Amino acid sequence: MERTMRRQLSRTCWFACLLSAAVATLAVAGAAHLAAQSGGDDTPPAMPRYDADGALQLPDDYLRWTFVGASLGLSYNDEPPQRESFNHTLMEPTAYDHFVRTGEFREGTMLVLLVRSTEADAMPARHGRFAADVLAVELAVKDKERVEAGWAYYDFRGGANLMTTAQPQPVGNRCYACHIDHAARDNVFLQFYPLLADAAGVTVD
Amino acid sequence: MERTMRRQLSRTCWFACLLSAAVATLAVAGAAHLAAQSGGDDTPPAMPRYDADGALQLPDDYLRWTFVGASLGLSYNDEPPQRESFNHTLMEPTAYDHFVRTGEFREGTMLVLLVRSTEADAMPARHGRFAADVLAVELAVKDKERVEAGWAYYDFRGGANLMTTAQPQPVGNRCYACHIDHAARDNVFLQFYPLLADAAGVTVD
Repeated sequence: MERTMRRQLSRTCWFACLLSAAVATLAVAGAAHLAAQSGGDDTPPAMPRYDADGALQLPDDYLRWTFVGASLGLSYNDEPPQRESFNHTLMEPTAYDHFVRTGEFREGTMLVLLVRSTEADAMPARHGRFAADVLAVELAVKDKERVEAGWAYYDFRGGANLMTTAQPQPVGNRCYACHIDHAARDNVFLQFYPLLADAAGVTVD
Repeated sequence: MERTMRRQLSRTCWFACLLSAAVATLAVAGAAHLAAQSGGDDTPPAMPRYDADGALQLPDDYLRWTFVGASLGLSYNDEPPQRESFNHTLMEPTAYDHFVRTGEFREGTMLVLLVRSTEADAMPARHGRFAADVLAVELAVKDKERVEAGWAYYDFRGGANLMTTAQPQPVGNRCYACHIDHAARDNVFLQFYPLLADAAGVTVD
């Protein structure tokens, strides 16, 4: 990814759909992702997995998580973005089920942000843009054992540079304060995810 | 939905991610959607369900299907769209697994298109747009028993007018020819779904 793009991504701090950081070395329960659509209370929750050195492992199935939000060109800075990107947020399905049932983000909740390039001019489309290459993969994880404020953020890069593990972003970077100040719920920018709010019957002010 | 919007949606024929029509009154295998992420060959495929009068039932869990494509303002007409919308395509998970394994859309494959309004000016965002209300829900179903050409298209409307069942669109409307002419694979506009193509190792020309 180009440096300007990466710098911009860093500024927008978009993957931070939440906030803050600490540890919970919980093993993923085997077929936990099968709980995705069952919604039953007896299905084991899928949890984040960490290496011995505390790095988060990129879950194998993150591209199959539940779709909760989409935007184009979203930026939190005064100046307009140098290049617009699609942002797509997916939520780990067992955590999604929990949120839909309770309106709460349980411990171990994981959201992934896919930052994607835009393409156009593919027939039969004569107008508009569609989402193409994944430029960045970023995760937000609710984990009070690991991060005192409750959430930690991980940048797995993207494309040919996609990493399989990542250390959390430094606590206290600008993402944290922004999420505390603006997130509609539990440091999550639920104001950008009306489908998720609707599914849980949650009202966003 | 406003008439202009509906007319435009009809013209773009976007939900038609595929093509053609006939019958397969196959019952959904109970927890078939659990097969979503397993990818195993022993998990029963989730199949379309039809009423006695041949209307397709809107699946309960379509909002949890696998995310495969996104666009903003895509239009197939010469004139630009009067109002841009986000289009999000989700694929029934067991059919997604089949496609990823084989590169083929199996019988009973279902894709849903969510046509969504755009919103802006929600803090902390200072630029860009995000997807909000679902204006239209449209399904494309591969079902040679029901449609000779292989695919049928269903418009469930949206918002307060969302329907739970829908009859197929008339065979021979403009969507059909467009998909035959332009779809990258099996009447599916795979050219707009690079994530799906990548997951299956399929090259789109």
